[in-house]
Amino acid sequence: MEGRVPSFSTLLFEAKAAKQMTFADIASQIGGTEVACAALFYGQAMASPEDIARLSGLLGIDPEKLASQMRGFPNRGTSVRMPPTEPLIYRLYEIIQNYGYAYKAVLNEMFGDGIMSGVCFKTYITKEQDVTGATWAVITMKGKWLPFERF
Amino acid sequence: MEGRVPSFSTLLFEAKAAKQMTFADIASQIGGTEVACAALFYGQAMASPEDIARLSGLLGIDPEKLASQMRGFPNRGTSVRMPPTEPLIYRLYEIIQNYGYAYKAVLNEMFGDGIMSGVCFKTYITKEQDVTGATWAVITMKGKWLPFERF
Amino acid sequence: MEGRVPSFSTLLFEAKAAKQMTFADIASQIGGTEVACAALFYGQAMASPEDIARLSGLLGIDPEKLASQMRGFPNRGTSVRMPPTEPLIYRLYEIIQNYGYAYKAVLNEMFGDGIMSGVCFKTYITKEQDVTGATWAVITMKGKWLPFERF
Amino acid sequence: MEGRVPSFSTLLFEAKAAKQMTFADIASQIGGTEVACAALFYGQAMASPEDIARLSGLLGIDPEKLASQMRGFPNRGTSVRMPPTEPLIYRLYEIIQNYGYAYKAVLNEMFGDGIMSGVCFKTYITKEQDVTGATWAVITMKGKWLPFERF
Amino acid sequence: MEGRVPSFSTLLFEAKAAKQMTFADIASQIGGTEVACAALFYGQAMASPEDIARLSGLLGIDPEKLASQMRGFPNRGTSVRMPPTEPLIYRLYEIIQNYGYAYKAVLNEMFGDGIMSGVCFKTYITKEQDVTGATWAVITMKGKWLPFERF
Amino acid sequence: MEGRVPSFSTLLFEAKAAKQMTFADIASQIGGTEVACAALFYGQAMASPEDIARLSGLLGIDPEKLASQMRGFPNRGTSVRMPPTEPLIYRLYEIIQNYGYAYKAVLNEMFGDGIMSGVCFKTYITKEQDVTGATWAVITMKGKWLPFERF
Amino acid sequence: MEGRVPSFSTLLFEAKAAKQMTFADIASQIGGTEVACAALFYGQAMASPEDIARLSGLLGIDPEKLASQMRGFPNRGTSVRMPPTEPLIYRLYEIIQNYGYAYKAVLNEMFGDGIMSGVCFKTYITKEQDVTGATWAVITMKGKWLPFERF
Amino acid sequence: MEGRVPSFSTLLFEAKAAKQMTFADIASQIGGTEVACAALFYGQAMASPEDIARLSGLLGIDPEKLASQMRGFPNRGTSVRMPPTEPLIYRLYEIIQNYGYAYKAVLNEMFGDGIMSGVCFKTYITKEQDVTGATWAVITMKGKWLPFERF
Amino acid sequence: MEGRVPSFSTLLFEAKAAKQMTFADIASQIGGTEVACAALFYGQAMASPEDIARLSGLLGIDPEKLASQMRGFPNRGTSVRMPPTEPLIYRLYEIIQNYGYAYKAVLNEMFGDGIMSGVCFKTYITKEQDVTGATWAVITMKGKWLPFERF
Amino acid sequence: MEGRVPSFSTLLFEAKAAKQMTFADIASQIGGTEVACAALFYGQAMASPEDIARLSGLLGIDPEKLASQMRGFPNRGTSVRMPPTEPLIYRLYEIIQNYGYAYKAVLNEMFGDGIMSGVCFKTYITKEQDVTGATWAVITMKGKWLPFERF
Repeated sequence: MEGRVPSFSTLLFEAKAAKQMTFADIASQIGGTEVACAALFYGQAMASPEDIARLSGLLGIDPEKLASQMRGFPNRGTSVRMPPTEPLIYRLYEIIQNYGYAYKAVLNEMFGDGIMSGVCFKTYITKEQDVTGATWAVITMKGKWLPFERF
Repeated sequence: MEGRVPSFSTLLFEAKAAKQMTFADIASQIGGTEVACAALFYGQAMASPEDIARLSGLLGIDPEKLASQMRGFPNRGTSVRMPPTEPLIYRLYEIIQNYGYAYKAVLNEMFGDGIMSGVCFKTYITKEQDVTGATWAVITMKGKWLPFERF
Repeated sequence: MEGRVPSFSTLLFEAKAAKQMTFADIASQIGGTEVACAALFYGQAMASPEDIARLSGLLGIDPEKLASQMRGFPNRGTSVRMPPTEPLIYRLYEIIQNYGYAYKAVLNEMFGDGIMSGVCFKTYITKEQDVTGATWAVITMKGKWLPFERF
Repeated sequence: MEGRVPSFSTLLFEAKAAKQMTFADIASQIGGTEVACAALFYGQAMASPEDIARLSGLLGIDPEKLASQMRGFPNRGTSVRMPPTEPLIYRLYEIIQNYGYAYKAVLNEMFGDGIMSGVCFKTYITKEQDVTGATWAVITMKGKWLPFERF
Repeated sequence: MEGRVPSFSTLLFEAKAAKQMTFADIASQIGGTEVACAALFYGQAMASPEDIARLSGLLGIDPEKLASQMRGFPNRGTSVRMPPTEPLIYRLYEIIQNYGYAYKAVLNEMFGDGIMSGVCFKTYITKEQDVTGATWAVITMKGKWLPFERF
Repeated sequence: MEGRVPSFSTLLFEAKAAKQMTFADIASQIGGTEVACAALFYGQAMASPEDIARLSGLLGIDPEKLASQMRGFPNRGTSVRMPPTEPLIYRLYEIIQNYGYAYKAVLNEMFGDGIMSGVCFKTYITKEQDVTGATWAVITMKGKWLPFERF
Repeated sequence: MEGRVPSFSTLLFEAKAAKQMTFADIASQIGGTEVACAALFYGQAMASPEDIARLSGLLGIDPEKLASQMRGFPNRGTSVRMPPTEPLIYRLYEIIQNYGYAYKAVLNEMFGDGIMSGVCFKTYITKEQDVTGATWAVITMKGKWLPFERF
Repeated sequence: MEGRVPSFSTLLFEAKAAKQMTFADIASQIGGTEVACAALFYGQAMASPEDIARLSGLLGIDPEKLASQMRGFPNRGTSVRMPPTEPLIYRLYEIIQNYGYAYKAVLNEMFGDGIMSGVCFKTYITKEQDVTGATWAVITMKGKWLPFERF
Repeated sequence: MEGRVPSFSTLLFEAKAAKQMTFADIASQIGGTEVACAALFYGQAMASPEDIARLSGLLGIDPEKLASQMRGFPNRGTSVRMPPTEPLIYRLYEIIQNYGYAYKAVLNEMFGDGIMSGVCFKTYITKEQDVTGATWAVITMKGKWLPFERF
Repeated sequence: MEGRVPSFSTLLFEAKAAKQMTFADIASQIGGTEVACAALFYGQAMASPEDIARLSGLLGIDPEKLASQMRGFPNRGTSVRMPPTEPLIYRLYEIIQNYGYAYKAVLNEMFGDGIMSGVCFKTYITKEQDVTGATWAVITMKGKWLPFERF
């Protein structure tokens, strides 16, 4: 990890490796998308008491221990040090670097003056195959449109 | 603009403003998505001779002048200075900052060791309304999956 | 200016100086708070056609010239280069640096997991005098509370 | 935590979690606003001997241990690494980035040449509901106005 | 100049060079210390209408031209880019780098929890000779002590 | 501490706290100014064998242990990370940022081409009260003037 | 190491030193180039179960221990902190700094608009001697050409 | 261009575009590899009087004008701002970031303690096709091996 | 030039190129070493009235024009942007990066606690040939030793 | 230490302090200059088996322990974090910052297009006294001249 993750991350990742479960397996049990589930592991989303209970059950972690580390409001934004040096994450960063103003221009034209929320936000990943048989990854980012308040 | 854009950007944006055309209008004429069209305006995509001809026709720009500025391989990546200070673009950047490792974890599980290409890549924006009538912006990013070559 | 402001800023500030008007004078005519009015001058808020018409009338600027520069979606976030070197702005920055986590802790306790929006946001300044006759500046920041979406 | 906090922070936060007390609970006992109370926890404000005594009583911490760590002048400014990556704190930072010069312009017009002190300073948070029932967070920052000394 | 100075700086420095006046000469006419006078030239202090009138008289600059450039609140902090690369200024910066915590420790012990104001602040330079005949520069910095407000 | 201090710093500060001595107390015993004494604690000045002997005596530290840590040439400049985030130290830094060129201009006029040494240098702090009863901190910095050698 | 490497790096390097094997020795056993083999040691390439088995056999490391550390997708890009300070690595970095645009210009002319992949990529080192007997190092970098997708 | 190139770059690139010559065409006339030729255009290599004469003849540029701009020792290293934001150049940079220590480890094993020179250095690009018909770009970097001098 | 040089630099370099004089030629006329002479051209040393008179005579520059630009105290330290990207200058920088603490350790042992002055400082370059006929550049840096003042 | 040094540095420095030997003492035994000897201690030069044997003998360190830590190719460049904050090292850095282009200009004139090697390089320190009895430190840097290869 380039940046910093909370201490429960290690706990969760080791248990997941020991149980040989994928995020798809876990997400199907605790609900939400695989990305949301992974975000929980990296401390980028808030775990509800139910999440903690299910995770400790699924992964065989002492519920008290997990709860004591996961309870509290997450301190987001520390896992990736920018600019990212990890090649996969850099590609995503580069998309924003190259197309940032193109996204802004089109979003402003379609929705007016505002932003796409990164908080009231959902995201998921799917797999596609094109006619040549090549595999494509598809990331969908969906955020509520928030117009700038006039004051 | 925080970063730097090529000189033809001004030419294109002024003509677009004068003609009161949207990227949707222009994209419907020159082909491709609205984001691709905006990327062309910001010098983040390569214009074919046909693109240049159509753009000069649509926007009433002297084709020679446009061609002399747009011909050549684009020098991508200069329009946004990172970290972005523009709020809309920052939200996209923050999504990568917060969910970068979650995306990586899920992509690696779904596709193996590799990256989602940002070159062999397509992207577009759509609008959705939820049951409460609220508007959501949806960005789809679709990149070919490239496995790391073993050497 | 440490950072960069749009070209109409010079136009507006020079006309304001020539007319010897304060932001209070102008805000009372175009509506909104003085901070919102100043933000318009620095290109940090979007001017409506009505704003442009009123500003050109009040300040004696050619409406066509002003409109051609102010129309379009604002490119926010470029006026202050961070960390700010201007002492007054640095003090505000330092408040965030010192009390950032205290604000987060109290906001999370009062409102749950989420953020105070900086987009659906209002702000204004008032003046107070304490019992010793000393003057205090009071900045009120008011943002809609946005809970993190669970996905 | 992105930056660094003093060692007593852990002590206090763990005791607070064990006692399931909020900052509102604690502030009502030791006096001052909730933000001031949280600032004390993060080492951003100086604890008086009375504060230490009350905190150790309220939270069940050995007074000697707490005193030995909290006595001394605070080393402020280390808890947030700028630019902040935590989304909630970034929103506050972005407000300064976007509106910094607007605040300066209005403050200078209202108060003359000087700064709003961040030292002779008070701040608190309140909650409001608008007519649609939506929740707003309100941060009030109140600093003594200090004119630049002529020398 | 490493950083940026306002446009009137050139005007003032060229006139000063043409008149072959020192800051001591000018300060003796407009009042204040030589450092304050130089700070005015670099746009780091606010010029009163009287300052502008006297400067234009002393230096033979058109008063209207000077007033139009110098009126307004100064935008301080832009003249030196940190860390300074100019050797003389670097030595001052290095003093803060080396002795910053020693100053803090002694100031806190002598004055309690607070800061030495850099706004309610005066500074001047004198020359001394030691017994060996060597020359020493003496910089005196004098700032009001501001205790941290308890809130 | 934002930056890094040598390991003996902790030893000295803890002993000083246990003995409840101020830097003024200690400086009066080991000689030199209070700032020089504090600088010794932070590893920013070189301790002579006599300093080490007196410090160990005064503070009740094992002389062997102290000597083994303090002997050697100091590695200065690491205690403050620039730009400083500590508010008191930032004010000193800001003075250099704002007045750096004013100091240079006046020093060059008074002394010719050269620098004020930060090595052949003395500094001390005094307290003053003005006619209103307000307290001022006075920092005196005194450095040998070193003319640039012509070569 | 300037940057960060995974914990198994130490394990592997110590075993390799104890066995006095070169990367050439190891690569001849596990397959692939010496650079690929070294990249595996630094956590910059993904180890297959066969790699792990062979490495543990060759180097006498407990296979379970090695597998538990090496299994999982590599987190690339953390071993070198840019700009590199290591002289050998800096020379490679400097080649990109000096010839980056020359490479781009020639690659674009030879291959069109696109990039040379760093993922679908192979590299190896050979040794040459020139006519004067001097030794030259030859690094070959070979990447699939990826044209920018039009969208 | 992200960084800065000398003024003759524009002259040369415009003439090359007007003549519709490739670097391969030009290199075949002035000698050296295409990369060396492009490096000359970007001011990253020194032009001999013969180079200048041939370039002015080939490209129809006034020899006096070209000579006055190209004579003198090149100021290398300014054309790419690191980290590069151009995707093609970033891929090369990423190769060094990922494989820097692997290259160092293998080079040290093969050649001993030293560096591969970036000055006594040659480089060229070739094209290959693999069995699937896919195109690969091959960059060869060849530098004299320089052992660290023992002193 | 990566950094910034004063405007007279262009004047001097163009005249030097037109006269086809080397720094050795010029230094032999105006006195001092070639490095000192070049430093004068880059604005890193102060020109005396005699220097200006001789330079204008030697290089055929209008003395008034040169004097108006060169008079005044130099603003040193702006010509190289650190870390340097120019390969020759980087090698010098790398020597400090690699051997900085070795120089410090030996200087402290030989001279005690202090610094080698960079102000009361001389430097020159010579050429040597070794027994193999290879050419070596020799840079001599000679600075007065300044002991840290005890205060 | 600002940057990072290898673990054997501590071992060597502690033994050297215990034996009360200077670098001059040690260098006279192991050969090479004092700077080379100090560089070995900081991990900036490669230790031969003979060096390790002599060092362990001279300093009374277990040869096996020393060899296991010192064997291997050095990872240079990590001991000083740039820009250096240590005053003595900063002075050396400042010399490059101020005179970098002057060195380049004179070196290019004397030797042509190339660099002074920092690898095929020797350096040593001597002491001089001037006629006033003042002490000067003299650093000699001597590097092979490497002309840029034409390719």
